[in-house]
Amino acid sequence: MTFVLTTTLTRSYDDTVADVRDALSEQGFGILTEIDLKATLKKKLDVDVAPQVILGACRPQLAHQAIGIDPSIAAVLPCNVVVRSIDESTTVVEAFDPDAMTRLAGDALCDVAAEAKKLLEAALDSLGGER
Amino acid sequence: MTFVLTTTLTRSYDDTVADVRDALSEQGFGILTEIDLKATLKKKLDVDVAPQVILGACRPQLAHQAIGIDPSIAAVLPCNVVVRSIDESTTVVEAFDPDAMTRLAGDALCDVAAEAKKLLEAALDSLGGER
Repeated sequence: MTFVLTTTLTRSYDDTVADVRDALSEQGFGILTEIDLKATLKKKLDVDVAPQVILGACRPQLAHQAIGIDPSIAAVLPCNVVVRSIDESTTVVEAFDPDAMTRLAGDALCDVAAEAKKLLEAALDSLGGER
Repeated sequence: MTFVLTTTLTRSYDDTVADVRDALSEQGFGILTEIDLKATLKKKLDVDVAPQVILGACRPQLAHQAIGIDPSIAAVLPCNVVVRSIDESTTVVEAFDPDAMTRLAGDALCDVAAEAKKLLEAALDSLGGER
């Protein structure tokens, strides 16, 4: 059982990051946080990892519904979308699967999670990669 | 089965936020992201929720180990620690339980998750609240 929604693109890392931002925006997700994991690990540990960024995507209406049902769910918000370079022309996009949220927090969140999943899948589908 | 580590404090929200920052720092966690959920939802939806902040805590060594074992785990990084006001003198702190990470991603992450959990529990214990 996986906990991410994935798509693999024949596209550069930089182009993919830009396209993912657009795709999330089109589905109503704002980016609240952003971590350049490669730069962070280089700075903190002087190690080299593949270019990758963690984008914290939030659709405020869904977040508000979710914390109304279970305030603890804030511990898995916002919904992270990771863009990671595989090689110069291949990039993978992985979004935290809202289904995993209901596996953690219970069925009360099913409807909100289903809505979030539909929108995230639409964003990933719109990138035109291999799912 | 819960997915958060919790402590409840007889302390103001503002003081708790400051103390949680210190407690995480003492256990080697940096704060990479920060979302003032109350301010965000007020701005985006004009709704009022309890004062609460989502702090994205990261111990770089553990994050590096974790993505070495399973790159997809970046989708649940950093480890969120939520501080939420209950009333003027009561504040709850909830950290995403790294055990939930292994429930999602599998046993290969057990050792890293156990280390992360030990440190997060030490941070929560140091606050002196009710666990």
